[in-house]
Amino acid sequence: MKARVFVTLKPGVLDPQGKAIHHALEGLGFAGVNDVRAGKLIELDLADGTDDAAIEEMCRKLLANTVIENFRIERLATA
Amino acid sequence: MKARVFVTLKPGVLDPQGKAIHHALEGLGFAGVNDVRAGKLIELDLADGTDDAAIEEMCRKLLANTVIENFRIERLATA
Repeated sequence: MKARVFVTLKPGVLDPQGKAIHHALEGLGFAGVNDVRAGKLIELDLADGTDDAAIEEMCRKLLANTVIENFRIERLATA
Repeated sequence: MKARVFVTLKPGVLDPQGKAIHHALEGLGFAGVNDVRAGKLIELDLADGTDDAAIEEMCRKLLANTVIENFRIERLATA
């Protein structure tokens, strides 16, 4: 079973990586970019039957820093 | 207009970050994790009317290293 975890900074938390990407895009001549936020994507290959609670616990304990980050879990259909 | 770009390592490319996460999850006692791959998520806030070709060019020129990474673009409905 596959699952994806998206980890993003909470609104209001400074994002220097996103700022750097934004600046670089402007330097390359891309107009019309208002804002860029950088986050993480973690793809998990899990044993069948792993439940959402277990994945959420993984996020809370390791994958995301819940003080400054939000996370979202997406389960993919079993291959 | 919002768009999300998902950048993932191509299959076969070594992923030490993913390996480290995998090892840490096992260390925390999570069983049943077969594999972990780490990637990036970039959220773009773009001017309305930015077309897919422009976003793809941003990916090819800056956001992804297409030698070792794949990218996927997801446009979100205009708020």
